[in-house]
Amino acid sequence: LEEQDESRVLELFEDMHAADIADLLEFLPSKNRRTLVSLLGDKLPPELFIEVEGEAQFDLYEAVSNEQIADAVTELDTDDAVYVIEELDAEDRAEVLRALTVDDRAAIEENLSYPDESAGRMMQRDLVALPEFWTVGQAIDFLRSEDESIPSDFYDIFVVDPGHKPVGSVPLSRIMRSARNISLGEIKDDDLHLVDVAMDKEEVAYRFTKYHLISAAVIDAAGRVVGVITVDDVIEVIEDEAEEDLLALAGVSSDLGVNEGLTDIIKNRFLWLFVNLGTAVMASIVIGLFEGTIEQMVALAVLMPIIASMGGNAATQTMTVAVRAIATKELTSLNAMRVLNREVIIATVNGAALAVIAGTISWLWYDNITLGLVFAFALVFNMIVAGACGLLTPLTLNRFGIDPAIASSVFVTTVTDVVGFFVFLGVAAAVLL
Amino acid sequence: LEEQDESRVLELFEDMHAADIADLLEFLPSKNRRTLVSLLGDKLPPELFIEVEGEAQFDLYEAVSNEQIADAVTELDTDDAVYVIEELDAEDRAEVLRALTVDDRAAIEENLSYPDESAGRMMQRDLVALPEFWTVGQAIDFLRSEDESIPSDFYDIFVVDPGHKPVGSVPLSRIMRSARNISLGEIKDDDLHLVDVAMDKEEVAYRFTKYHLISAAVIDAAGRVVGVITVDDVIEVIEDEAEEDLLALAGVSSDLGVNEGLTDIIKNRFLWLFVNLGTAVMASIVIGLFEGTIEQMVALAVLMPIIASMGGNAATQTMTVAVRAIATKELTSLNAMRVLNREVIIATVNGAALAVIAGTISWLWYDNITLGLVFAFALVFNMIVAGACGLLTPLTLNRFGIDPAIASSVFVTTVTDVVGFFVFLGVAAAVLL
Repeated sequence: LEEQDESRVLELFEDMHAADIADLLEFLPSKNRRTLVSLLGDKLPPELFIEVEGEAQFDLYEAVSNEQIADAVTELDTDDAVYVIEELDAEDRAEVLRALTVDDRAAIEENLSYPDESAGRMMQRDLVALPEFWTVGQAIDFLRSEDESIPSDFYDIFVVDPGHKPVGSVPLSRIMRSARNISLGEIKDDDLHLVDVAMDKEEVAYRFTKYHLISAAVIDAAGRVVGVITVDDVIEVIEDEAEEDLLALAGVSSDLGVNEGLTDIIKNRFLWLFVNLGTAVMASIVIGLFEGTIEQMVALAVLMPIIASMGGNAATQTMTVAVRAIATKELTSLNAMRVLNREVIIATVNGAALAVIAGTISWLWYDNITLGLVFAFALVFNMIVAGACGLLTPLTLNRFGIDPAIASSVFVTTVTDVVGFFVFLGVAAAVLL
Repeated sequence: LEEQDESRVLELFEDMHAADIADLLEFLPSKNRRTLVSLLGDKLPPELFIEVEGEAQFDLYEAVSNEQIADAVTELDTDDAVYVIEELDAEDRAEVLRALTVDDRAAIEENLSYPDESAGRMMQRDLVALPEFWTVGQAIDFLRSEDESIPSDFYDIFVVDPGHKPVGSVPLSRIMRSARNISLGEIKDDDLHLVDVAMDKEEVAYRFTKYHLISAAVIDAAGRVVGVITVDDVIEVIEDEAEEDLLALAGVSSDLGVNEGLTDIIKNRFLWLFVNLGTAVMASIVIGLFEGTIEQMVALAVLMPIIASMGGNAATQTMTVAVRAIATKELTSLNAMRVLNREVIIATVNGAALAVIAGTISWLWYDNITLGLVFAFALVFNMIVAGACGLLTPLTLNRFGIDPAIASSVFVTTVTDVVGFFVFLGVAAAVLL
């Protein structure tokens, strides 16, 4: 397919959605990517620059000229244009910015002036903001005009006062269903879900989800409308957030999917494994304290991984629920005590049930009832520690402004390993020998 | 606040969004919930029934009459109404359905006839579908009419042929920007992203995300438009999916957040811990095979948890990336071999680096270079197994139609524990004694 037949290829790509071309690029080996990109030439859809990810993105940006990037940036909405600009290195960025019109450049530079994860970076600058006293008819006539500031896709009209401060919004469907002589003020929703330009994008996503918004006005510090955020941008944030938590809990940095560069992935995972080696060594040091005990009763060495494993799993359950509940604001300092009580009850009930089973197994295995009792006790004890620690660790990290998903796992499993080994071997040393 | 002053309370709630009332209900203790619900009486917003979750949902549904539920259901969109009906037990459900108009009942019953996780369940039935030859002016006049089938919120107008089959769609913003005499056929997007009534809701969410859709027409087996899915419903699916994967990997069923009933949570988590006890016992049996070896060299017991822990962590990294990549369709059978090669390289490089560190530590600790070498070898070996197994397990489960997030963890950690202990103790027994 990819070899000679230029016109066939171009024909095939003509009707393809940019997202599909991006997928295709990601699947192709690096060499074919460049061939394809140069073949498409100026037929590359501008949206391709924002759809493509990982190594394919790198190849695409390398394969096209800065001029082509500038053309694409001109076509895109502000938020997407900013995304493309952010991906460039300093030199290319300056060159692309120079090739833009003054207006486009100013808009992009202003977005870039807002903090990295803020609403200001996400927003699009073109929006429809009309005065309250305008009628539906005037609004429609204005929209039919060729005014440059009107974006191609929009879902709400924002109603503003003379100071350009928002006083309400009207969904397009309501405009269409209203007679021409009705004023926007009469049909507007007062229930404004305004987004401050400095608001964190996670908070933006939370509000969109909670109030089922399609678009929301972004206001600056003076309360004036400066942009709009639409739901499609928010979906990306929601997906990224959830993915970040999932991967962070497993010790993988979120930027690195299966299409990323190998060296980056290796470095990224190494760091976590290295930290984990440190914590595993700590657990071993605890075991080392009891070498004499193990020598006298090797059954302890056989059973001790069960204590650590059960504690680790119980802690992971609680911790994952807690991390998720913090992210969705179901768990706050308001109900933390109630949830802690519940977790301790859950851990005690499940710990007791499993301790009976596990204790019986070990008793029968080694024909030693005291061993069974010590084992059961250590199991319950470690599971209660796991439940409390699995909840309190993410809560505490969150309180100090640290992302609970990133740092919780290491700490929690270290605690359950160390406590588990120490209690089991310590009690065994005291009672059994 | 919640005690006597009825009118104050009612006043406070008047302007509150249903989502905020739902949050409040979830934070309140059970008794106060019922008081509040009965106080609000018929001022309860219908949306409250879909916003509220967990125990608060149970309390709300208990506290109101079936008549009140029927009133709320009448006000809601089809998809939301179906959600409410699904939450009721058989008896209440029948009573509520009987209280509805024939049309509402028929619509709800048809949605309920589609499979549980399908587009048919998610869709709303009211939509705007107009013939191709209608002009923008005719469309606007129709929308201004009081026609009952017109939904209150919509974002696209679907263009249909005489057989009610979709041939295109027009976003509202484009209608508003076009002159009255232009026909819908001229301005429609041909690029239809149709959703089949039987399509899985995850697939629906994938398409919405990929193609940045705001709404999409749902067609039946004959290709006729029967409903519409809007982006706000899709956001919920995306959030639920990501959450499901996150929790499933940690061994928690997804329905059970911090607000659920205690018994359900205990049962749900117990199951996983019980399975895990089984696998931990398997690992212990492997250790038991080498009791004699450990008795002669207790250092092995001290070091062996490190092997298992590192293998488990490396496997979790790979597995989590794989589960996520399968969910986002970045990982398919097309690129599985390439990704496997990469994972083996990653595991070998990181395994070798960590083995040098860990081997040196153990050598110095016990002043035994052979022990250090055996330990390092077992570590590398187990990490390569972890990488391969962490990737192949979710891929294989997915191939057989099993959700990779649910079953992968147990299997993968069992393999790394068993392999890790067996190789380390086995090689040690052969070489060191």
